Amino acid sequence: MFEFTLETTDGGARAGTLVLPHGTVTTPAFMPVGTHGAVRGLSMEEVRRTGAQIVLGNTYHLHLRPGEEVVKTLGGLQRFTTWNGPMLTDSGGFQVFSLAELRRITEEGVTFKSPIDGSLRMATPEKSMEIQWALGADIAMAFDHVVPGQSDHATALDGLERTLRWLDRCKARHAEIVAPDKQTLWPIIQGGTHDDLRLRSIAGILERDPWTGIAIGGLSVGEPKPVMHRVLETLAPALPADRPRYLMGVGFPDDLIEAIARGVDLFDCVAATRNGRHGSAWTASGKVNIRGAALRFSDAPLDADCDCETCRGYSRGYLRHLFVSEEMLGLRLVSIHNIRFLVRLGEQARQHIQAGDYASWSRAWLQRYHSKEA
Amino acid sequence: MFEFTLETTDGGARAGTLVLPHGTVTTPAFMPVGTHGAVRGLSMEEVRRTGAQIVLGNTYHLHLRPGEEVVKTLGGLQRFTTWNGPMLTDSGGFQVFSLAELRRITEEGVTFKSPIDGSLRMATPEKSMEIQWALGADIAMAFDHVVPGQSDHATALDGLERTLRWLDRCKARHAEIVAPDKQTLWPIIQGGTHDDLRLRSIAGILERDPWTGIAIGGLSVGEPKPVMHRVLETLAPALPADRPRYLMGVGFPDDLIEAIARGVDLFDCVAATRNGRHGSAWTASGKVNIRGAALRFSDAPLDADCDCETCRGYSRGYLRHLFVSEEMLGLRLVSIHNIRFLVRLGEQARQHIQAGDYASWSRAWLQRYHSKEA
Repeated sequence: MFEFTLETTDGGARAGTLVLPHGTVTTPAFMPVGTHGAVRGLSMEEVRRTGAQIVLGNTYHLHLRPGEEVVKTLGGLQRFTTWNGPMLTDSGGFQVFSLAELRRITEEGVTFKSPIDGSLRMATPEKSMEIQWALGADIAMAFDHVVPGQSDHATALDGLERTLRWLDRCKARHAEIVAPDKQTLWPIIQGGTHDDLRLRSIAGILERDPWTGIAIGGLSVGEPKPVMHRVLETLAPALPADRPRYLMGVGFPDDLIEAIARGVDLFDCVAATRNGRHGSAWTASGKVNIRGAALRFSDAPLDADCDCETCRGYSRGYLRHLFVSEEMLGLRLVSIHNIRFLVRLGEQARQHIQAGDYASWSRAWLQRYHSKEA
Repeated sequence: MFEFTLETTDGGARAGTLVLPHGTVTTPAFMPVGTHGAVRGLSMEEVRRTGAQIVLGNTYHLHLRPGEEVVKTLGGLQRFTTWNGPMLTDSGGFQVFSLAELRRITEEGVTFKSPIDGSLRMATPEKSMEIQWALGADIAMAFDHVVPGQSDHATALDGLERTLRWLDRCKARHAEIVAPDKQTLWPIIQGGTHDDLRLRSIAGILERDPWTGIAIGGLSVGEPKPVMHRVLETLAPALPADRPRYLMGVGFPDDLIEAIARGVDLFDCVAATRNGRHGSAWTASGKVNIRGAALRFSDAPLDADCDCETCRGYSRGYLRHLFVSEEMLGLRLVSIHNIRFLVRLGEQARQHIQAGDYASWSRAWLQRYHSKEA
């Protein structure tokens, strides 16, 4: 269980298979985000039909509502949400540091105010493990100290050192409470945009355990794209080849293409559904604003190259009408398309890695994607 | 085409079949309302899975957005919305009289201000026919003068007389423009809560044409339920037995049961989706507020007797969580249930009419439905 098989490499890009208690994930793969136990606007049946193999749940949000005891009583996240497939939960670290009010950070953990009822709550590495085990995902993430994007060296160092100390506590508590064939724990590399700290972080992580997978946190938080690419290039040789690599909170279609070239296997991001709700659709030739007046009489699909149910069934003119009339169905249909777009990007990348032409394919892909911007 | 076969009667209740260009409708039947070319929150595929056989479109809303020329260019309402089945459009009369601002009513028609761009527009019987033909539904409704609920005798008389004069204009324009095998026109009985005026209205309608179906308008607009029942009882013997009877804007589950007993074959109402959006679900034993705290840990379906996809797949606890977290999926799932609830009520009524036990079945049904109120 939790075994990752690296099947093919093509330059830095990798194709593999990850076996999890609730199913198998072929990589590279994009994970849709089900913040509140639902991928926003979609049913899990629709998520399944996008070809998504694994869904992410947010520990912070699910702890606040409905509470992990509800999810556990109702059969765990897979059954509660009807997804019934592989799931990963984040640790709540990112949300506590980025969303919560009135926080106080100590070595013990983070005190924050619940936005639901105003009560003070404390997030700790142990508590995060307990919540994630109650939620029941296949993969739990370590509780990390997330520092602001582009923090200075001292701040980033402080964050990564605390993250390592917290990792020891996560590992200890996780080992105490979980059934080891039901849930695994992945650590998170921190270190901001500082190459030396990133290497220090991964070294510290690997000293502690071989792990079943490793995540890269703290990127795509405002730094220039070349900086993210440089950090990924710095990390690639230091990461064990036989472990899946998960780049957290990324991303946009071009981010996936670039990160896959640099050895990343797994991704998650809310951009697909957030953009979908705002009527911004990704297509092979760039972004389309579905509200555009030019679409009014268009009988064409959103993206002629796409095989999603939105592109197979609906015209641009109808999608535009739904957005202009503020019909919920519109948000849903464009979200379905955007998720399928990223899932299919993973599938296409995998095919081209297996064919050995990832570099040329991805170059052509990016050129077409950015062609309208020129 | 447009043939109605009355198959069975059981007391006043009727079971029949209506053949339309886009398919066949067995009655009694509930029609979900697709105001803006979508049944709010649902895909047409979901509407199909509720067992709905025919969908209503709103001429007023579709004229304003996206405009009938868009719908026509994109293949008509059936193709535009992907419903591809029987449809009925209302005439816009009800909306012009109940929703629009700054209206002026003359014999020619109604002048109103577009809520979209503030422009002045005129609705006339001819214009309504032209728009409905462009939209392309199987059944078009006559443009009627709708008077306020419980209007006095003189006002109701004025409305019904104008509705009859407008019916002549609707019929003339409809005959000029439509392909007669593609769309039919149904008249609307008015007359408020005045039995003599209701009879005068139906007599005037039947003087003009045998029609392929007849609608009853201006009920369920605030009058006491016994008054609605009395008007239906007054009308029943005056209506031709071999024509379908459509009670507009009705209703709630108990309204369907009572109106079917009094000879009604077709219904439409937004209550199913409106209540669904507000978390109010109909069940065999009465209404359930899906936000109720008692549902938090409930693994039970919304309605154990229901076969809809919501009741087959989701727990009350999860539905409650979706509403409390304001996840769109919640509104959708309860709307699906409520629509299926009314569609199934039509199916059940039909079975019991065919079995000849509609009176006892419906009595027991109402008793159980109201049992919690006691």
